[in-house]
Amino acid sequence: MTATTMPMMETHPQRIKVDRAQLAAAIDAIAVCTQACIACADACMSERTVAELSKCVRINLDCADVCAATIRVLLRQGDYDAKLNRALLEACVTACRSCGDECSAHAKKYEHCRICAEACRACEEACRRLLTAMA
Amino acid sequence: MTATTMPMMETHPQRIKVDRAQLAAAIDAIAVCTQACIACADACMSERTVAELSKCVRINLDCADVCAATIRVLLRQGDYDAKLNRALLEACVTACRSCGDECSAHAKKYEHCRICAEACRACEEACRRLLTAMA
Amino acid sequence: MTATTMPMMETHPQRIKVDRAQLAAAIDAIAVCTQACIACADACMSERTVAELSKCVRINLDCADVCAATIRVLLRQGDYDAKLNRALLEACVTACRSCGDECSAHAKKYEHCRICAEACRACEEACRRLLTAMA
Amino acid sequence: MTATTMPMMETHPQRIKVDRAQLAAAIDAIAVCTQACIACADACMSERTVAELSKCVRINLDCADVCAATIRVLLRQGDYDAKLNRALLEACVTACRSCGDECSAHAKKYEHCRICAEACRACEEACRRLLTAMA
Repeated sequence: MTATTMPMMETHPQRIKVDRAQLAAAIDAIAVCTQACIACADACMSERTVAELSKCVRINLDCADVCAATIRVLLRQGDYDAKLNRALLEACVTACRSCGDECSAHAKKYEHCRICAEACRACEEACRRLLTAMA
Repeated sequence: MTATTMPMMETHPQRIKVDRAQLAAAIDAIAVCTQACIACADACMSERTVAELSKCVRINLDCADVCAATIRVLLRQGDYDAKLNRALLEACVTACRSCGDECSAHAKKYEHCRICAEACRACEEACRRLLTAMA
Repeated sequence: MTATTMPMMETHPQRIKVDRAQLAAAIDAIAVCTQACIACADACMSERTVAELSKCVRINLDCADVCAATIRVLLRQGDYDAKLNRALLEACVTACRSCGDECSAHAKKYEHCRICAEACRACEEACRRLLTAMA
Repeated sequence: MTATTMPMMETHPQRIKVDRAQLAAAIDAIAVCTQACIACADACMSERTVAELSKCVRINLDCADVCAATIRVLLRQGDYDAKLNRALLEACVTACRSCGDECSAHAKKYEHCRICAEACRACEEACRRLLTAMA
């Protein structure tokens, strides 16, 4: 991923206002988390115990949707809107926290939940670091 | 739109925790705003003065993306996550405010910006009312 | 919805190449279908028989994603790309057909599936009519 | 990316019907292309010559939306729907072809268009290979 994220930022005609390395790290972590959440929801749906996992599926889907919007806004760094970037990153942190907690609760039983919980934690952490860099 | 939004909520097996009328009103306003933003961005791109409208295009696209994620999360009312709903609605209010302000600045010159500004204001208002109803 | 869809098209600086009424009808039908699918997936997840509905949830989610992309592309009528519009509308027809069939199979038991099946049929029909108008 | 894509597929309770390596390669290529298109659109908007790039921005946005939907459908391999997967991959190939052609035309002048054209070509190729593997 980073293979494209960083060069794209370097060729942007406007000077990007946010620390590029933190931004690229956040974008990559959010991309991994988005995919993990969609795949985890689908895997949960195939478990015989799906009835116990419906909350997990939902928060997986919510988290994926918030992550997908966050990536798009972060990739648009021209005319940077600090307030919007911050509000959305905070929503992303909230989604990743909820999803990470829920998936962790199933991590011992389901490997897909364990992998997804890790992706959520890494994403939450990367978003927090970007929020700090933006302040 | 409401033709489907309300009946769908009424047939949900879980009792929805948020005021249904406010929720349906918000979902409809966000859907209208999403479309207005995507169409306004495209119309701006066809104006001869597009160079003056690049900020407008960007915030249109940001606003559409945040709105699209917000609708999806609001439509998933099973296992309702108050914190996430609130954080995302706040990001949506911020996006609609920015986009409404930018489009208003071009409203006299471009009819598509005027219509979009109105859709953003209505969306911002509906999201604020839903946030109040959630509190 | 149409309240914004049609005026937006009328204010677009480029002459839109597709029949506007058919286009607006398709956009509205796809928007209703997108929401119905997301809401139906969430309602299915809350049914005690969720294990029998996992296929329905998946095709709901697939259909919502294809519909969401189709709306966005249809709303961007400047520099109209006939081949892409057609390929995506065909994918949308395929998704609505699959989802309509699956939801129909549960329509007697679950009112949300009945409503969603109807939304899928209407969307499929509107997309087919737009494809014909484009030819 | 692959770090999560492959392990997730390996932990899916249903046997995935498509060749896993091809599927993971396609998912990764589509993810890179999605980001490149969103970033390229934003970079184009900041060029002084934006008026000449409006077609490029639009096809960038269309391509990103089709790619985003395709990834989501490909990640949901439970209850695999061959017809839908194929129709959407074909739309994705069409979008990447159009976007790759348009970006190539600006590749000598704008480095972001050159990078994006490459991402589109790689994505088109990966989708074609997956289509062949599915047949």
